[in-house]
Amino acid sequence: MKVEKPKGKLGILMPGMGAVATTTIAGVFAVNKGISLPIGSLTQMGRMRIGKRTENKQPFIKDVIGLQSIKNVVFGGWDVFDDNVYESAMHAKVLDETLLKKLKPQLEQIKPMKAVFDHEYVKRLDGKHIKKGKTKMELANALMKDIEKFKKDNDCDRLVMVWCGSTEIYIKESEVHQSLASLEKGMEENHKDIPPSMIYAYAAIKMGIPYANGAPNLSCDVPAMVELAKKTGTPIAGKDFKTGQTLMKTVIAPGLKARAIGIEGWFSTNILGNRDGEVLDDPDNFKSKEVSKLGVLEDILEPHLHPELYGNLYHKVRINYYPPRGDNKEGWDNIDIRGWLNYPMQIKVDFLCRDSILAAPLVLDLAIFLDLAKRSGMSGIQEWLSFYLKSPQAPKGVHPMHDIFKQLNKLENTIRYLAGEELITNLGLDYEA
Amino acid sequence: MKVEKPKGKLGILMPGMGAVATTTIAGVFAVNKGISLPIGSLTQMGRMRIGKRTENKQPFIKDVIGLQSIKNVVFGGWDVFDDNVYESAMHAKVLDETLLKKLKPQLEQIKPMKAVFDHEYVKRLDGKHIKKGKTKMELANALMKDIEKFKKDNDCDRLVMVWCGSTEIYIKESEVHQSLASLEKGMEENHKDIPPSMIYAYAAIKMGIPYANGAPNLSCDVPAMVELAKKTGTPIAGKDFKTGQTLMKTVIAPGLKARAIGIEGWFSTNILGNRDGEVLDDPDNFKSKEVSKLGVLEDILEPHLHPELYGNLYHKVRINYYPPRGDNKEGWDNIDIRGWLNYPMQIKVDFLCRDSILAAPLVLDLAIFLDLAKRSGMSGIQEWLSFYLKSPQAPKGVHPMHDIFKQLNKLENTIRYLAGEELITNLGLDYEA
Amino acid sequence: MKVEKPKGKLGILMPGMGAVATTTIAGVFAVNKGISLPIGSLTQMGRMRIGKRTENKQPFIKDVIGLQSIKNVVFGGWDVFDDNVYESAMHAKVLDETLLKKLKPQLEQIKPMKAVFDHEYVKRLDGKHIKKGKTKMELANALMKDIEKFKKDNDCDRLVMVWCGSTEIYIKESEVHQSLASLEKGMEENHKDIPPSMIYAYAAIKMGIPYANGAPNLSCDVPAMVELAKKTGTPIAGKDFKTGQTLMKTVIAPGLKARAIGIEGWFSTNILGNRDGEVLDDPDNFKSKEVSKLGVLEDILEPHLHPELYGNLYHKVRINYYPPRGDNKEGWDNIDIRGWLNYPMQIKVDFLCRDSILAAPLVLDLAIFLDLAKRSGMSGIQEWLSFYLKSPQAPKGVHPMHDIFKQLNKLENTIRYLAGEELITNLGLDYEA
Amino acid sequence: MKVEKPKGKLGILMPGMGAVATTTIAGVFAVNKGISLPIGSLTQMGRMRIGKRTENKQPFIKDVIGLQSIKNVVFGGWDVFDDNVYESAMHAKVLDETLLKKLKPQLEQIKPMKAVFDHEYVKRLDGKHIKKGKTKMELANALMKDIEKFKKDNDCDRLVMVWCGSTEIYIKESEVHQSLASLEKGMEENHKDIPPSMIYAYAAIKMGIPYANGAPNLSCDVPAMVELAKKTGTPIAGKDFKTGQTLMKTVIAPGLKARAIGIEGWFSTNILGNRDGEVLDDPDNFKSKEVSKLGVLEDILEPHLHPELYGNLYHKVRINYYPPRGDNKEGWDNIDIRGWLNYPMQIKVDFLCRDSILAAPLVLDLAIFLDLAKRSGMSGIQEWLSFYLKSPQAPKGVHPMHDIFKQLNKLENTIRYLAGEELITNLGLDYEA
Repeated sequence: MKVEKPKGKLGILMPGMGAVATTTIAGVFAVNKGISLPIGSLTQMGRMRIGKRTENKQPFIKDVIGLQSIKNVVFGGWDVFDDNVYESAMHAKVLDETLLKKLKPQLEQIKPMKAVFDHEYVKRLDGKHIKKGKTKMELANALMKDIEKFKKDNDCDRLVMVWCGSTEIYIKESEVHQSLASLEKGMEENHKDIPPSMIYAYAAIKMGIPYANGAPNLSCDVPAMVELAKKTGTPIAGKDFKTGQTLMKTVIAPGLKARAIGIEGWFSTNILGNRDGEVLDDPDNFKSKEVSKLGVLEDILEPHLHPELYGNLYHKVRINYYPPRGDNKEGWDNIDIRGWLNYPMQIKVDFLCRDSILAAPLVLDLAIFLDLAKRSGMSGIQEWLSFYLKSPQAPKGVHPMHDIFKQLNKLENTIRYLAGEELITNLGLDYEA
Repeated sequence: MKVEKPKGKLGILMPGMGAVATTTIAGVFAVNKGISLPIGSLTQMGRMRIGKRTENKQPFIKDVIGLQSIKNVVFGGWDVFDDNVYESAMHAKVLDETLLKKLKPQLEQIKPMKAVFDHEYVKRLDGKHIKKGKTKMELANALMKDIEKFKKDNDCDRLVMVWCGSTEIYIKESEVHQSLASLEKGMEENHKDIPPSMIYAYAAIKMGIPYANGAPNLSCDVPAMVELAKKTGTPIAGKDFKTGQTLMKTVIAPGLKARAIGIEGWFSTNILGNRDGEVLDDPDNFKSKEVSKLGVLEDILEPHLHPELYGNLYHKVRINYYPPRGDNKEGWDNIDIRGWLNYPMQIKVDFLCRDSILAAPLVLDLAIFLDLAKRSGMSGIQEWLSFYLKSPQAPKGVHPMHDIFKQLNKLENTIRYLAGEELITNLGLDYEA
Repeated sequence: MKVEKPKGKLGILMPGMGAVATTTIAGVFAVNKGISLPIGSLTQMGRMRIGKRTENKQPFIKDVIGLQSIKNVVFGGWDVFDDNVYESAMHAKVLDETLLKKLKPQLEQIKPMKAVFDHEYVKRLDGKHIKKGKTKMELANALMKDIEKFKKDNDCDRLVMVWCGSTEIYIKESEVHQSLASLEKGMEENHKDIPPSMIYAYAAIKMGIPYANGAPNLSCDVPAMVELAKKTGTPIAGKDFKTGQTLMKTVIAPGLKARAIGIEGWFSTNILGNRDGEVLDDPDNFKSKEVSKLGVLEDILEPHLHPELYGNLYHKVRINYYPPRGDNKEGWDNIDIRGWLNYPMQIKVDFLCRDSILAAPLVLDLAIFLDLAKRSGMSGIQEWLSFYLKSPQAPKGVHPMHDIFKQLNKLENTIRYLAGEELITNLGLDYEA
Repeated sequence: MKVEKPKGKLGILMPGMGAVATTTIAGVFAVNKGISLPIGSLTQMGRMRIGKRTENKQPFIKDVIGLQSIKNVVFGGWDVFDDNVYESAMHAKVLDETLLKKLKPQLEQIKPMKAVFDHEYVKRLDGKHIKKGKTKMELANALMKDIEKFKKDNDCDRLVMVWCGSTEIYIKESEVHQSLASLEKGMEENHKDIPPSMIYAYAAIKMGIPYANGAPNLSCDVPAMVELAKKTGTPIAGKDFKTGQTLMKTVIAPGLKARAIGIEGWFSTNILGNRDGEVLDDPDNFKSKEVSKLGVLEDILEPHLHPELYGNLYHKVRINYYPPRGDNKEGWDNIDIRGWLNYPMQIKVDFLCRDSILAAPLVLDLAIFLDLAKRSGMSGIQEWLSFYLKSPQAPKGVHPMHDIFKQLNKLENTIRYLAGEELITNLGLDYEA
């Protein structure tokens, strides 16, 4: 496979410049200044094995395959509030004031463009920094103009877009999403099943700009968008950043299944007090998140194949808006498991996490890897990026892959493949000789 | 590779017929009677994917490759107490009385042979049902006679041995363990670095009987034993069943590392009140267990490659004898992690487990898979069985593999290899076509 | 105060013969047979200090004041299912089968009388063993006939009634509850604010039978019932047994307040899978429980007096129906606290409890102590029994007392008072001399 | 009782100016500047009820009885390092840098006097800022000179001393501690059972200065010191600040006992990474702490009176030095309880606390209340201050009181008594009328 070199500047565009986007931007600036570390980012700090175990070769991923340097990225985006990135980061209370103050000059230069927004899809949010347009297609065109201007103003070689906005209300895939033609017609006619996140996705993919979706909204996860992506040669990835509790779930569930340990019940509750928590306090928006979170276990555990182990699994997910915590989410899980002769045991996991701290490196990695995909001539659903997503888009005819270790294996073997290295199977029967 | 069919009866021999061994035996009987399920056993309930994801083929492992049926196994063993298996199981209080009563006629027929035992190596245990012998070699010979008699009396086609005894005091690998010749000399001269578990291992491997070690004692994990195993064409696997807390550790640590999340501290404490807990209350015996438990993280996390992420990891493991719980162990872990820009987060895992319930299916799987190895002509260290072990023996020149997902991948690809099936790499770039 | 001796037989009547009632009855039988202990019951196992600390006098409470012996009690009740107590206890799966089988002959003799029930008030329940009547007053009269018959058939000297039925939907105190006259009129006219639990309370109090309410329904907690109780000289106590999570809350909150430690948030979630969990899965019924559970903290912490410490307390209570657990409830609490200079800290409490096991001794104690109250000539609200109740009924003009230690102090000093002993103030300045 | 008015300046002297002392001092300065709140301090923020519940009188404690204002206190102390309070506080990493910087001018003026210290009693500590002297009596005299100078230099009206130093090695009460005469002889002869903390206590009490001991060392908790205190009219209080885990234990244990709930096991583990953790990593020093922590449950639960409930209680306490946490201690408790008919349940408490944040308000309250005691003419053991102590000194012939609610009741009723208010018994039978 021919992979183009990452020359020039990469522009990273983010619809939604709240806690997640500003934590990402401030972090990249801090790392570039040498005052902090991009922990949690595989593109920046990850290594992977190349060759046999006995060769002891574990280079940085970025040395296996050419990746865009973060010294050479610029950021832009849209928001319903007109706060600049410094103001928005201060408001989000994720990063320390002292750190933000050091970065203030750079941060306050980034100002959000006017957002495409509709209160109907996120009732707990209200903002005035909003684009006007008669049709959704008109709004998409306005976005495309923004993008062109941004690219030119910032002298970018290439762009990527990562949705960092709020969770919209639950919308089921319907007729309007089935083909590009019907989608475009729907946009002209302001079809109600086309929320803002879909308008952004359309604008990006239409322009051949790789697009990732960090929220559980459908956005690019409909046949029409896949059709468009193939047509414009655009890599896409969705949906919903896999951060706290679901991250742990896709770690632990494969571990239990590996050992054929039964699971009778899995109760997950979250408390969080940031804007995300506030938005999800609305049942319609929570529904989107719930659907995204609930699918995980079934796909990992395959109860149809293991009815005695997982056939009666009772899975419940709760999210509770709890202001005392701000962005510091806490996820508590209770797992009722069954072992030898059906004896019951329990696992409890309490994860005192930080929502945006976990999400920021995912934004960066998705941007950098989507750019790699683009440079490699890959288009459509990038299943190898499922690793980062709670509800990964899968190619037609196969189930999504949720097991984080299979996802990592796939991601690494994809990179080995692009780099012309041998794939790893862990067989290794030859070591003993 | 040519794999012989599993015909005839398989004898499973266990040094140490306490909680773990009796739970295994009673469980197999209960399963054979159809009154319970062998949950936690891959050989009995596990499936694995064969072919591409789109083929949807996930047969039972036992249908991919011929495995000995548990309808056709017999059990035997040695113990320092002369209780029969029914009495010992009642004493262990792992399984319900009502279940044990249903199996009483079968269980009470299994009586332990006299054990090779030396109080010096397990100070908290005392028993009278003990073999006498002038030298350790004499004791090994006595064991070999026991084995021959057992095989004949029970009309076995093949045998395997799985150490289910207590943890012995900590012994470092020394000169006497370096070659078969020096080991045999040491046995003649009653060298103090040859504890009972090594005498059992010697007897089994000498006779070509596959041997697995469920405790952290060295046992078969010394060069002399590997030499003997290669010479007699015997598969071996050690050491220390990977059950509760360490099982979770080798699930969670790879998950965090997958995401390049830093770890600053990992504190693990256990409370348990069974005989194992009592034995480990002695610092010399705890030392064996501690060494076995502590190695896990370093091998998974590779701090030398990731100094910013794992270079300062503080790892502490505690085991506390706590009688109120009996066999129902509880493991509590606190993990101090670091994310984006070094922000701290915490994960706490509380595992209310059952020691013997988690260990029993491992005894069975190790026995069944070692028999498969033997029938396949494999000998020496079976690294593909690392999946079951806390401190896996590794081929010379490579680090042991602790990541449970790589271990599973290795186990499955080994079986695919034996069965002539294609290995799985999770690349799957062709699905999209 | 003149206290009559507890002679003859005491009949304990329970509306609702499900998990709680059958666990109480089976327990009393088991204790009387000498095969188990009435743990959790102060009347049976509690001691209290009498006199100065230096006197070392801590007799059993039942030796301080005459209490009805449980050797001499009989049980009866009503239920919407016609299962006898043995069948109902087997169905509830709280107590071991082996224990229940030993008590079967006695248990199956107790058969519930037909219940006063209306599906409108408990939508998740359906039963056919139901009384018919044109008006609520007619139903009350039918209950009174049942009671008379029960008393005669069982040759009882005295009776008490303890509500052990389900939580009804939330009803606010309204006009109809303000006086006995309006209540009786409402009963004649089938007023919708008079649920079944109020009809039982009316029947009992009208007959001078002490009445306690173990659910969060209003039941006897309205002015009309207090008026009736004073008129008929009947002691009453309500409402809602203080068992798992709320018990812990009224232990811990006073502890934090004692030290002037601030509380910023208290998040409480429960998982349970019994019939109670099923009933509370209906929002209308949960509302009753929620109101009962939420009041606790405010009354203990008095935010109006401590605005800096408790003025912004965010208190959230969730109950989740989670079938894998059955009657074994789990309550998880997270408490965000503030110390010196406002530094944040956290407390997490995980209570793996058993709903009916915690409630059963409360049923017994309330019955025995209400009988004491009756024999002492006390009537109306028995605030000294607040100790047992989540949402205690308080005399007019004072706040209910939720702090379990003040409640215990009140209970004990009330008994000391009745027994003519000196009250305890813990001053003890004289010990030093 | 005649209570003198708190006129003039109060000097608070602290042996040991590490994390606890500097957090106390900085806190008082911050509060006086109006930039923070003295949360956790009853003398500053606590209220108490006066009169009947219906009177609704809950004034601040400091308005019930005259207490020294913190506007008018000065601080001094001794340490083995010569860092001033600002440097020491920065080193301790308890308080935010930004806060400390605001207080820098005041903090750096306080410099520790040279300490009386002996490495034998605290092996993990080493410091050079140490007094020299031939005998322990000589050292005591040197301290008394320091004190006189401090009083004069700072123009103090009265003084108190609170031990904030490290835990010394375990020493049993012996012959030398039995009378003032033998103690003074021992000091002359450098008896090994007289550690530094006892020399400080002697100096203070000899001068009539109230003394409290915040560590588990014997210090003032021997007959000789009580004799001296009575002779010099000095109030004393010891020992060991009741902060994190033990605080919770004395909250929860009385709660369980109140309900006659059985306790079978209580396992407590701690992780902490401050200097205290380092000192306690030495088994001899841990022993002092362990004895102090273990006594708590027995005194609350009285197993001799409740053999079925607490007769077999297995209580284990562990402290683990765990550097990743610094001063942010975490205490995890597992409590195995028994309810109705002996059914087992479990409570787990995870307390993410801050050692010095919890201790600082206790230093202040003990100082302020001991000054009250002095002004009231009280001398010897101040049992009413047990509320603040893990292992309270009790008058001869009575058991120490550990139940925090009885302790609070005693503290409040003592203040009511001093203020001439009516004692509270919670009887309140008159409210109903």
